Amino acid sequence: MRNNRTAEIEHICPRYHKAIELVGKRWTGAVVRTLMDGPRRFSQILEMVPGLHDRLLSERLKELEAENIVKRRVYPEIPVRIEYELTDKGRDLERVVTEVKRWADRWLPVRARAAAGRR
Amino acid sequence: MRNNRTAEIEHICPRYHKAIELVGKRWTGAVVRTLMDGPRRFSQILEMVPGLHDRLLSERLKELEAENIVKRRVYPEIPVRIEYELTDKGRDLERVVTEVKRWADRWLPVRARAAAGRR
Repeated sequence: MRNNRTAEIEHICPRYHKAIELVGKRWTGAVVRTLMDGPRRFSQILEMVPGLHDRLLSERLKELEAENIVKRRVYPEIPVRIEYELTDKGRDLERVVTEVKRWADRWLPVRARAAAGRR
Repeated sequence: MRNNRTAEIEHICPRYHKAIELVGKRWTGAVVRTLMDGPRRFSQILEMVPGLHDRLLSERLKELEAENIVKRRVYPEIPVRIEYELTDKGRDLERVVTEVKRWADRWLPVRARAAAGRR
């Protein structure tokens, strides 16, 4: 594959392209990570991700629900309890999360700040 | 970790957060993928990523150089030849790329389009 002839150029896989930008979209990877250990309430997710605000979290959760990565569960208690959890598709991102974490631990400085506000 | 008590909330790892948004930033994951099989010239990368344009590629390559993920090599030939290649830090993203690809193959529809134009 080190052949540089223009005639042999291949496009990268569009599914890979969609997937990497889906999970890497700002805040999304962080939100997915908060749900890896089990269901969370909205306020809990918010507290686990420094810099994330209500409006953006609710936008991201809706996108993740639309992609069938997150499921919203409503428990008819008083007061009503709402939790977000990963679907099978979402839980299967665990290996991606693990590899990103491994890479980050190896290559990023210990004091690396979240990407918040960098774009 | 299914304990819901507010007192026990932990922040997600800021290095993970930075890393996932670094590689998942629009076009960046795609550009990294094009270099996984060896050095490429600017025009080759461009051709491998449908929808990507000059200005954005050059911006992304500069960001990746600043993060020490990509190295720009100038060969003093006539005409001069310039190639981009992954550094060790960049090559070590291979396991991330592999896991994202595996997840995408499993969960995204075959005709999934690149995320281009979705944000």
